[in-house]
Amino acid sequence: MTRTQDPTPPPLLRIDGERLWAALMQLKEIGAYDDAATGLRGVRRLALTDEDDRARRLVVQWMREAGMAVRVDEIGNVYAVRPGRDRSLPCVLMGSHIDTVATGGAFDGTLGVLGAIEVVRTLDEAGVATLRDIECGFFTDEEGVRFGTDMLGSAVTAGRIPLDHAHALTDDAGRTVAEELVRTGWDGDAHHRRPTPHAYVECHIEQGPILAAAGVDVGVVTGVQSISWQRLTVHGEAAHAGTTPIEHRHDAGLVAAQVVIELRRMCDSGDYGRLRATVGTLGFEPAQTNVIPSSARMTIDLRNPVDDHMTVAEKDLARFVDDLAAAAGVRVEWERMAKTAVVPFSRRIQDVLAETADELGIGYVTAMSGAGHDAQEISALCPTAMVFVAGEHGGISHTPREYSDPRACANGVTLLANAVRRLADEPGGGSDER
Amino acid sequence: MTRTQDPTPPPLLRIDGERLWAALMQLKEIGAYDDAATGLRGVRRLALTDEDDRARRLVVQWMREAGMAVRVDEIGNVYAVRPGRDRSLPCVLMGSHIDTVATGGAFDGTLGVLGAIEVVRTLDEAGVATLRDIECGFFTDEEGVRFGTDMLGSAVTAGRIPLDHAHALTDDAGRTVAEELVRTGWDGDAHHRRPTPHAYVECHIEQGPILAAAGVDVGVVTGVQSISWQRLTVHGEAAHAGTTPIEHRHDAGLVAAQVVIELRRMCDSGDYGRLRATVGTLGFEPAQTNVIPSSARMTIDLRNPVDDHMTVAEKDLARFVDDLAAAAGVRVEWERMAKTAVVPFSRRIQDVLAETADELGIGYVTAMSGAGHDAQEISALCPTAMVFVAGEHGGISHTPREYSDPRACANGVTLLANAVRRLADEPGGGSDER
Repeated sequence: MTRTQDPTPPPLLRIDGERLWAALMQLKEIGAYDDAATGLRGVRRLALTDEDDRARRLVVQWMREAGMAVRVDEIGNVYAVRPGRDRSLPCVLMGSHIDTVATGGAFDGTLGVLGAIEVVRTLDEAGVATLRDIECGFFTDEEGVRFGTDMLGSAVTAGRIPLDHAHALTDDAGRTVAEELVRTGWDGDAHHRRPTPHAYVECHIEQGPILAAAGVDVGVVTGVQSISWQRLTVHGEAAHAGTTPIEHRHDAGLVAAQVVIELRRMCDSGDYGRLRATVGTLGFEPAQTNVIPSSARMTIDLRNPVDDHMTVAEKDLARFVDDLAAAAGVRVEWERMAKTAVVPFSRRIQDVLAETADELGIGYVTAMSGAGHDAQEISALCPTAMVFVAGEHGGISHTPREYSDPRACANGVTLLANAVRRLADEPGGGSDER
Repeated sequence: MTRTQDPTPPPLLRIDGERLWAALMQLKEIGAYDDAATGLRGVRRLALTDEDDRARRLVVQWMREAGMAVRVDEIGNVYAVRPGRDRSLPCVLMGSHIDTVATGGAFDGTLGVLGAIEVVRTLDEAGVATLRDIECGFFTDEEGVRFGTDMLGSAVTAGRIPLDHAHALTDDAGRTVAEELVRTGWDGDAHHRRPTPHAYVECHIEQGPILAAAGVDVGVVTGVQSISWQRLTVHGEAAHAGTTPIEHRHDAGLVAAQVVIELRRMCDSGDYGRLRATVGTLGFEPAQTNVIPSSARMTIDLRNPVDDHMTVAEKDLARFVDDLAAAAGVRVEWERMAKTAVVPFSRRIQDVLAETADELGIGYVTAMSGAGHDAQEISALCPTAMVFVAGEHGGISHTPREYSDPRACANGVTLLANAVRRLADEPGGGSDER
């Protein structure tokens, strides 16, 4: 594909890496906790908690200090706008999220949000006026930890999840999203279905080992792998641990353990492509030392970069569980929590990112995302791609060990800045090919 | 061994099976709940809860109505006394417990307590005066569900667990045994170390399939198998479920599942005699669908009728877990919760039970107990044995399906009555051979 280059390309922008880093370090203090498992200081800032509220207020303050007008929509998504010369044209949107998991770090999500604000500061300081508006956003409950549905705010905006459904979701204490939006004051009046942007670019840590293994700081993301979340409940029979012969047992816990083992075998087998399977939660009832479990409840998280491999993996798992249940004399109950197909990103936006990285002299590789992101939702609205930033320790995240060094962060956001500036100068009327 | 028979043996006693059954059915209403897993009505009467308090008050009322004086000791054990002709001689003690597990039935423990009261009623109605005092007791928190240590009250009485230690044990909400004794009013003033009885006989449901398979209602119990309770905590590393490659994971949950599977393999192998292993509790942290577990916490309940087999099983399990942890890059932490060796019961009391059953024409078999009982603690104080009563459905217990039919219950308590009467007429000064 060929693009029409501007006759005189504008000078390249370099963001202020120290200012970006300072913002990341300041934000991570909100919700900070001492993590016993790692001995490190982590971040626990679940969506619409008091900690999230405080973080939101700080980020909005920074948006306003960067001269932007801020609006909040009905699901608590926040957008700040830097006006372009032609306000009638669709904007270029940057964004991510600032909620974390219970054992989070300083970079997941926040890099894309604070990076977007840094892009605006950089444009302002360079005196750059763009044709189109540029917006910086952050989306409610991307992690899905608190209310059980990830990418919640962006999915509502993209129209995949109805607003009423999202508002009615509850946390473990029975509090609804709607109640918590009101309680924290983030029940905005902007419409939850935002005007279609010209493009969306999200900068995010990779959360994987590919970039570091390739010796680069950034990646151009080709798409997001498919994700399947299911809850499995095994119903066996409680019985006395000391007196019930092994052959008389209907041990729900044993069956659950066998499912955990089988999932690992499936990953190792290679029969399902690059399948990743995780059992993140597992609990027994009645949960007594001397009682064979009457039930076991577990979640199963499957990821696959190829939809067909995911389909076969889910089918084979279901058959395995059925056979196991029949042999063990237990009953199983499946509940679908989430399912997304592979989301390919816009080839055109990927090309802009790749060409811009080349111009900047920033080495990159292309990679598919192993994690879900708001970008996969927004890609239903407009051409979308992502910039990945390398992490240390194999790109580990969702733990306080999550770490990306200042240079990698700065390179990622510099790439974001120049690509977004270029996209924001694209004239109207062209085809928005994905 | 030969015993001196009374020249004219007294007529045999028959207890009132209907009265016993009515008491069992009345007591099970205290703490009754609807069990979702079985669709049956179960009993949830954990030690020193409000339900336990109500049950204790009803049982004490029945003890007093049977003419007995009641005392409560410092750990909440309750004893009722029917005076004998020579109050200076050690008594014959009957008893068991009235607390239940969270998914309990109507018979576990209660049969021995209500059976003991029925024995006293029967003696009274038959106008039988015994040489020795007869006491009926029930012990605090036999199940160990609430405060984590089973046979708590009887272990304190037998001197295995110091009173201060027992008082300081806490439930999941952090409430101590001492606080709950005071709150429920069962902090008695009798000394926790009771006077040494002449003999202890406990009637209890078998909780296993042996009696039913042999076609008999009752069993003479030869002892209690060894019990090992350990808590295992696996410390891995939290990481993102979608992005962390399988080979980079330190999945605490997977290791826990592998331990569950290995335990079953050990039971099936036959290498450890009649080993029974149960993982009754298992939980993950941080317990999120999309986070690889950083830690997994489980209990391991092992039972074995042969001490040497238990020793080897524990050693092999520890080695398996060590190797597994090294391979998976996780750390494991063991905590000893409880350990009891095989407890052989008094041969002499077993003989009294067997001879009495023969006189009564009640068929019996001898059997070792798969479950722990207060009798194993009291056996440290005095010659002890147990009467088992057959249960249906393979003797399943710790579930609302637990059921022993009225005839079996009546036969067990009739055996108890006649054996206790015989023991209570034994003269003083003889050797208390075990």
